[in-house]
Amino acid sequence: SQLKDAGLTVFHVVPTLRAALKAVDAGVDGLVVEGSEGGGFKNPSDVSTMVLLPLVASKVEVPVIAAGGFVDGRTMAAALALGAEAIQMGTRMVATVESPIHENWKQAIVDASETDTVLLNRHAAPSLRVLRTDRSNALEFDTSTNAMEHMARHSELYFGGDMDAALALGGAVAGRIESIEPVADVIKNCSNECLEVLRNLGSTYVK
Amino acid sequence: SQLKDAGLTVFHVVPTLRAALKAVDAGVDGLVVEGSEGGGFKNPSDVSTMVLLPLVASKVEVPVIAAGGFVDGRTMAAALALGAEAIQMGTRMVATVESPIHENWKQAIVDASETDTVLLNRHAAPSLRVLRTDRSNALEFDTSTNAMEHMARHSELYFGGDMDAALALGGAVAGRIESIEPVADVIKNCSNECLEVLRNLGSTYVK
Repeated sequence: SQLKDAGLTVFHVVPTLRAALKAVDAGVDGLVVEGSEGGGFKNPSDVSTMVLLPLVASKVEVPVIAAGGFVDGRTMAAALALGAEAIQMGTRMVATVESPIHENWKQAIVDASETDTVLLNRHAAPSLRVLRTDRSNALEFDTSTNAMEHMARHSELYFGGDMDAALALGGAVAGRIESIEPVADVIKNCSNECLEVLRNLGSTYVK
Repeated sequence: SQLKDAGLTVFHVVPTLRAALKAVDAGVDGLVVEGSEGGGFKNPSDVSTMVLLPLVASKVEVPVIAAGGFVDGRTMAAALALGAEAIQMGTRMVATVESPIHENWKQAIVDASETDTVLLNRHAAPSLRVLRTDRSNALEFDTSTNAMEHMARHSELYFGGDMDAALALGGAVAGRIESIEPVADVIKNCSNECLEVLRNLGSTYVK
């Protein structure tokens, strides 16, 4: 309400239907609905995009931006089918030419397979989806440590390129990213592919 | 190969790209690509449908059936956008009039929210996605027990309706299922909604 009074447009990031309804009640302009395959801070009760996005979109009237799993035009077309009006890309943008983080991290995203992220801190909110490294693998079943304690040296990771200095936040779409691209190419290819997919679906299934 | 020699059409269920490529090399006719939001037996390295399905579909030539998160026409349209040719519904079919399991289980699916499943046995394959019950909640962070040991009394669960007699396998789409429906209605509504979604996407985005 204070934010809106200041003239800002407010989109709140939500990981569950309950949080979405609470945000709408509080008067947000829209929602970023983020599935648990996305990188970074997460709800311990993880819900994937394929379940969460259509659930929330079917229960609210405000515009919805889809996040978690989005990386290209196919996933963008799926987001639109599930009721979103836009997508948000995180990990894909980290692995761009313009991204200011260290090349080691960008390369780790390119090298990752789809099983190379892990959701830590299920026992102690906030949970975190991070790239698999020696540090994150060691924490996978450790319920006595809060993974947030492993973020202190994050600048050595972000800008120094020491991949085990802290936890490298990242989404499972790392397994779908095969090269470091200019941002303009990511957006242009995504948009073009999305329209091509929608056109093909129309000509294949809609008589 | 023995299966194919016997005249069977073989679709193999896969949870990763690596498993998909291995199955294709072995000569399968097609794949069921199942994301980790689906119920039942799972890979410990969980990958959601939004990441796994387009990844596998982009790397294989055989037909792909999408599973994990599918429950209605919107999700079916998303599956087609992601490269599948069909969908498989598990939890949705358990909660139908014709399903032979006990009414208590069907009602538990209807009552569940999207956060009411949990993936057990991450430490000891096979992992299992199950409905949250007292029994499954107690196992969530227990890395000293193999959850499969909790399946012995499954017939008391399936047909006796004792929801804590064993683990009730179930997908996160339980949170999107609001009533027990006849199978014919599930399929008809799914198909109609899918075509409606594709038609609307075409008229909204494709000039």
